[in-house]
Amino acid sequence: MRSLISMLFLTICLCAFGGTAFGQVLKPETAVEKWAGKTVMLIGAHADDDALAHGTLAMLQANGNQVYVVTLTTGNVGTQDPNLSRTQLAQIRRQEEQAALGELGIAAEHYINLGYDDGLLEFEDRKAVVENLVRWIRRLRPDVLFAWDPGKNYQRWHKSDHRAASYLAADAARAAMWRLLFEGQVTQEGLREYMIPEYMFFNDYDREDENTWVDISEYIEKKVNAGAKYISQFGPGWKSYKPSLSEPELKQMKDGVRSQIRMKDNKPVEGFRYYKGLPDAIGK
Amino acid sequence: MRSLISMLFLTICLCAFGGTAFGQVLKPETAVEKWAGKTVMLIGAHADDDALAHGTLAMLQANGNQVYVVTLTTGNVGTQDPNLSRTQLAQIRRQEEQAALGELGIAAEHYINLGYDDGLLEFEDRKAVVENLVRWIRRLRPDVLFAWDPGKNYQRWHKSDHRAASYLAADAARAAMWRLLFEGQVTQEGLREYMIPEYMFFNDYDREDENTWVDISEYIEKKVNAGAKYISQFGPGWKSYKPSLSEPELKQMKDGVRSQIRMKDNKPVEGFRYYKGLPDAIGK
Amino acid sequence: MRSLISMLFLTICLCAFGGTAFGQVLKPETAVEKWAGKTVMLIGAHADDDALAHGTLAMLQANGNQVYVVTLTTGNVGTQDPNLSRTQLAQIRRQEEQAALGELGIAAEHYINLGYDDGLLEFEDRKAVVENLVRWIRRLRPDVLFAWDPGKNYQRWHKSDHRAASYLAADAARAAMWRLLFEGQVTQEGLREYMIPEYMFFNDYDREDENTWVDISEYIEKKVNAGAKYISQFGPGWKSYKPSLSEPELKQMKDGVRSQIRMKDNKPVEGFRYYKGLPDAIGK
Amino acid sequence: MRSLISMLFLTICLCAFGGTAFGQVLKPETAVEKWAGKTVMLIGAHADDDALAHGTLAMLQANGNQVYVVTLTTGNVGTQDPNLSRTQLAQIRRQEEQAALGELGIAAEHYINLGYDDGLLEFEDRKAVVENLVRWIRRLRPDVLFAWDPGKNYQRWHKSDHRAASYLAADAARAAMWRLLFEGQVTQEGLREYMIPEYMFFNDYDREDENTWVDISEYIEKKVNAGAKYISQFGPGWKSYKPSLSEPELKQMKDGVRSQIRMKDNKPVEGFRYYKGLPDAIGK
Amino acid sequence: MRSLISMLFLTICLCAFGGTAFGQVLKPETAVEKWAGKTVMLIGAHADDDALAHGTLAMLQANGNQVYVVTLTTGNVGTQDPNLSRTQLAQIRRQEEQAALGELGIAAEHYINLGYDDGLLEFEDRKAVVENLVRWIRRLRPDVLFAWDPGKNYQRWHKSDHRAASYLAADAARAAMWRLLFEGQVTQEGLREYMIPEYMFFNDYDREDENTWVDISEYIEKKVNAGAKYISQFGPGWKSYKPSLSEPELKQMKDGVRSQIRMKDNKPVEGFRYYKGLPDAIGK
Amino acid sequence: MRSLISMLFLTICLCAFGGTAFGQVLKPETAVEKWAGKTVMLIGAHADDDALAHGTLAMLQANGNQVYVVTLTTGNVGTQDPNLSRTQLAQIRRQEEQAALGELGIAAEHYINLGYDDGLLEFEDRKAVVENLVRWIRRLRPDVLFAWDPGKNYQRWHKSDHRAASYLAADAARAAMWRLLFEGQVTQEGLREYMIPEYMFFNDYDREDENTWVDISEYIEKKVNAGAKYISQFGPGWKSYKPSLSEPELKQMKDGVRSQIRMKDNKPVEGFRYYKGLPDAIGK
Repeated sequence: MRSLISMLFLTICLCAFGGTAFGQVLKPETAVEKWAGKTVMLIGAHADDDALAHGTLAMLQANGNQVYVVTLTTGNVGTQDPNLSRTQLAQIRRQEEQAALGELGIAAEHYINLGYDDGLLEFEDRKAVVENLVRWIRRLRPDVLFAWDPGKNYQRWHKSDHRAASYLAADAARAAMWRLLFEGQVTQEGLREYMIPEYMFFNDYDREDENTWVDISEYIEKKVNAGAKYISQFGPGWKSYKPSLSEPELKQMKDGVRSQIRMKDNKPVEGFRYYKGLPDAIGK
Repeated sequence: MRSLISMLFLTICLCAFGGTAFGQVLKPETAVEKWAGKTVMLIGAHADDDALAHGTLAMLQANGNQVYVVTLTTGNVGTQDPNLSRTQLAQIRRQEEQAALGELGIAAEHYINLGYDDGLLEFEDRKAVVENLVRWIRRLRPDVLFAWDPGKNYQRWHKSDHRAASYLAADAARAAMWRLLFEGQVTQEGLREYMIPEYMFFNDYDREDENTWVDISEYIEKKVNAGAKYISQFGPGWKSYKPSLSEPELKQMKDGVRSQIRMKDNKPVEGFRYYKGLPDAIGK
Repeated sequence: MRSLISMLFLTICLCAFGGTAFGQVLKPETAVEKWAGKTVMLIGAHADDDALAHGTLAMLQANGNQVYVVTLTTGNVGTQDPNLSRTQLAQIRRQEEQAALGELGIAAEHYINLGYDDGLLEFEDRKAVVENLVRWIRRLRPDVLFAWDPGKNYQRWHKSDHRAASYLAADAARAAMWRLLFEGQVTQEGLREYMIPEYMFFNDYDREDENTWVDISEYIEKKVNAGAKYISQFGPGWKSYKPSLSEPELKQMKDGVRSQIRMKDNKPVEGFRYYKGLPDAIGK
Repeated sequence: MRSLISMLFLTICLCAFGGTAFGQVLKPETAVEKWAGKTVMLIGAHADDDALAHGTLAMLQANGNQVYVVTLTTGNVGTQDPNLSRTQLAQIRRQEEQAALGELGIAAEHYINLGYDDGLLEFEDRKAVVENLVRWIRRLRPDVLFAWDPGKNYQRWHKSDHRAASYLAADAARAAMWRLLFEGQVTQEGLREYMIPEYMFFNDYDREDENTWVDISEYIEKKVNAGAKYISQFGPGWKSYKPSLSEPELKQMKDGVRSQIRMKDNKPVEGFRYYKGLPDAIGK
Repeated sequence: MRSLISMLFLTICLCAFGGTAFGQVLKPETAVEKWAGKTVMLIGAHADDDALAHGTLAMLQANGNQVYVVTLTTGNVGTQDPNLSRTQLAQIRRQEEQAALGELGIAAEHYINLGYDDGLLEFEDRKAVVENLVRWIRRLRPDVLFAWDPGKNYQRWHKSDHRAASYLAADAARAAMWRLLFEGQVTQEGLREYMIPEYMFFNDYDREDENTWVDISEYIEKKVNAGAKYISQFGPGWKSYKPSLSEPELKQMKDGVRSQIRMKDNKPVEGFRYYKGLPDAIGK
Repeated sequence: MRSLISMLFLTICLCAFGGTAFGQVLKPETAVEKWAGKTVMLIGAHADDDALAHGTLAMLQANGNQVYVVTLTTGNVGTQDPNLSRTQLAQIRRQEEQAALGELGIAAEHYINLGYDDGLLEFEDRKAVVENLVRWIRRLRPDVLFAWDPGKNYQRWHKSDHRAASYLAADAARAAMWRLLFEGQVTQEGLREYMIPEYMFFNDYDREDENTWVDISEYIEKKVNAGAKYISQFGPGWKSYKPSLSEPELKQMKDGVRSQIRMKDNKPVEGFRYYKGLPDAIGK
């Protein structure tokens, strides 16, 4: 559409977007801890991808923001339990995800699952998936998008569904802003183009691009309780699923989540790459 | 899934489906003129494909049935007016279609347009389109499906979008009945599998398979008034669109629709191939 | 590759193919009942598609021919039993098919299943499926191919997997004869191009093209016993699967299969469209 | 785009198209033998598909029409000679085709080959092939299109490339008339939308739809000489290619072509299904 | 085709390519400022992608090189003006691009637009796009290719069309050199394989791989005037298009372009990653 | 399937995988020089991709491991010899590869070529290729997988087939471990899911991620002799193929291979990025 030369001009005009210069390290003008009244959308590949941001999501929910989680696949493949079927696994993953969101204070109806098969996301028709995500962006009209950041190293051999999810989310964010793309949504469904202005990208071990760390001190327990809901994805439940755990098992799960919490400046944090501006330049 | 040998067995068990033998000419047990309380779904490629059944739809609506029209494309290509854009054309086609349905007594909200580009339906990812139609079948759960019948001759060089629409509708009807197909809809969206039991196939000039003719004597005016709404698809409006017509132009349009009404046994009729039974055997 | 004008010339040279004129009704020179020493390959979409030819296959096996059944899908969708998973269904279908073939005297190792998902065959990459079938044709090098014939009426609204299977089988038969198509099989796998000379096409209710009827008088019981193995596709097992039936249920299944056997000239028969010649002209 | 109901109206307005009623058997108003000054385009799948119309093309060329032959594939697969490579075969097929057209008086530059691989046409991206054909239709702007007619029987098991070519040609003819389809050609290449008004469909053995027979009495020798150029597709050259034939071999080839010429009313003819009207209704 | 181990050997033989060792930072042997008599091809996704190299292109044109700009999409989506249609936008973008090239001294006929839809390039059939680019490479036979370089950071979240364009250009450069790839172009269109020997990759903000900076001191005004032609992509024209600007608006646009010009060693420059050698090793 | 949060938990349970922490530089616990009794699988795009590991493979073979080489394409494009056909080239590449493996002591039957066309791997249906690789992983059940590592720089403009091969291998390694992915292989072919535990990634010039260097001192001659078998990919044979070389030419080839051998700590080595753990985290 437009090369950067014109983007740069735009920054003069589009001061609503913050007038940020390109190339500089960005941070939110208002600290994430102060956000309120925002609509927040998270796009992940699997139930539990949002766990990387559970503390932050719990805080945002508590502070009067609306949080929506959109998951691309049903998670109907990832088990080592020889007795679970795809159907059962998809149902379990949904229940666990809604239970986890419940711990964060997020309503079950704010969980949207697009129903693709687990492990095969890259083989879906990409135009159709992007169109689907664009529809949800135009419906929810989020102020902030949380999504996978491929990261410098990680992207290269990125787990297939995560790699797909990271690109699909970015491509959808870009497409959603153009009235003339996926125009059937505009002319037939009453939706309007929409540009997401702010982004929080997360990653699981390639953290060199992080520029923003959210203090989740007050939301540790919510994060731990939420993480402990993913029984089918953890130790005992992964190899042999059961809907509830014994006390020691539950404690072990919670300890596991707790042990993964990162510390920065003596505070428990979740880290993100924050970006604000035109979606076309997300990757700068 | 199952070859016919097992289907034949099924007819023993599935008496709810009418126990019809294969190969015989079918007619509705209850005359269409007597249908009431049914949910009726029509799948077409373009706004105005339903015009072939406007008299019947008006009757069904009047008799207490719920009628839904699902159109696959926005119709954003088919004009000879050099000044219309895709956007304008899509908007016009939607307005015209809803106005036409209004003449038949069908609510504007009962018009569902899936937003695909006109003239390119066969190039869309077929699995994604079928999945979309399956979703609507499982939502609306129609008692009767109206759709394009390819017909013996016609199919061979069938207009591309119509050819696509006829196969897509049949494939969706078949897929919708299986719990394990497009299962994401079942596990994530609260939908359940659904088997459409009755079908009314229409065609525009290959009529040799018709087995059912609906007497539309009382709905001629509704059909004519509805047909006259498609200004962008007709004589003056096709070459040079204008939102409303002069009196003589309007009369000419209405005369045109009227002149196309078929007579059978001295009654104005619309003709269909009726089918009842398992979707797999639609084509028998 | 070549239009018919050259094909006609070929009939002069390729007298090995029988020198048949185009357009005439064909029958096997040697009655099917006398075939011996042939390799026979059947391509179907689902376990039980071969049931349409079970009497003939039993006869061919008994008469010293080698029979192979290639099924494209695992049949992992077509059930009304709410408790069966895809995995279970695929396993059951395989067991039933091998049990049925066992009744016909065909070894379990002669059953080849290509593993595609039931109900979605048309959405697979067609080039990859054809390449797969070409591989098996070049491996087995059959003298006769049994496959779905679309039939004049039936094709139009043909059940999706069957429609796909009929075209895929024909396209594979054509491609297999060319050394330069799917050449990796030739240069890397030690396979050589192969032209199938004879064909037996079957159909389930559109029989107007049949030209050959095989007398299966002596193989009725084998056919009935084989058909009765498809428990998961029949009456009681279709809605609520159980691995074995009660005596009355089994009798009902067998009666069902028996009642479907067609009579012609006072003999029980299975009907086919026989074709001999270049694969390119299969459809004449 | 538009259903037939509006097409019928159009026949009132678009009298330039002949005002033909739908469903009736059509014949050219001006006998083909009298055509002059027309641009004629033929779309085939392989070099030699045009041979079915060689007499007619020779006549049209002689009578002052411009004839162009567009072939979709290079024919680089269809040989039984174990020593020919794809490259050699493609080169030979091109030389033969241009030599054949030369016999008909058609210039070598009027031969356009789109370069697709032989035997794999159906696996190409259909949108890209149609776009390519639309480009050539908009460039050449033919008064008449010659193309494969699937025919009632033939289509069902139609040789794969021919089946593809028949649909691709029809779909391209339809798409070419809409300004808003493949619009890049209009905005970037200086092409304009174009509607082909007349069609001559050919077939090789399914002739029941023929409605027009062209008397080729005076063009027999040209047709025979042209047909004899396809050495790589015929008897000796098919199994073991050589660039030129001995006298007896050449005579045998010519006799072969001659023996295939059809007689009707004691005249040698080539038969076609003629159609005139909107491309959308080609298949009526 | 060949792993690097053999490439290294090749550098011994293929001294025409410069014998450069792998891994070292490359610079042109002859300074870009001295190039003459070369054919230069630029591949971009949108009209204005070439703006990143306008100074260099103006210089090359002035110095007696032939410059061609190939743009993949029509740019028919990227506007914020609610009144522009796709058609209008495509036309405007073409006019602007040709006007900009005119300022650089490049003839309008040297602008080639492949007509793909803006914003959807990644969803096109990649094989068809690469084939199209290979055709143009083999036609133009450039000594130097200018194209998008993904860059280390940038690629990860690269704007979708740019990401596609960067890979498509590289893949086409590689494919073009092989006689046996896209061979239809060789056997049917009179084209011959071609290996581009030199490359100039550009990027918009990820510049760490740059190794070559072109002094554009003398071409500043041309660059500024060219950049000022992209009215539909800039400030006032982006939100509300008008074909010409007021004096102050024009001045503002020119100031904008001018302000983006980079300085290095006190000279205005454009920066590139230069590469010379086998296309397979472009990314080293 | 599962985000990292759960992966981390798994490391507690799945101590069989080594309990490695994420992010740390990995090395094999047992030195590669000591490996014995392992099944080793290498996935490459072309015959000769394995040459980067020939010394290591020769050592492993000598030490009692089973080595299999799986090559995706036939290499039927990459020649500059104007007289070689695709067929000939594919045959030559196979012979050369098997001769090279023979020099390493690896049996010809351990060479598996999947038959895809050279240079077009990225345009194949990815799901079908991954499924094919998953089948071979489940058959061979390797303890170690050797494959292309994209590398930080290299990936960006990676030679198309290598880029494809690197992702396809990783995606197949991930998919193979899930019972519910490509389940047809499990239910129909008697294969079982399999997780490859160890990986050795190679690259040709982007070596910054290497963490393991194998001392190949004793296998230099085998490596040199093997490399000298790739006549069609080297100096004289690349431009004009001949099946055997003169003494000086052979010496030159061997010298070439020898000159490429890398030294580290005064020993000849081959370098790899070793990884052990869940396939999902290959890229960490």
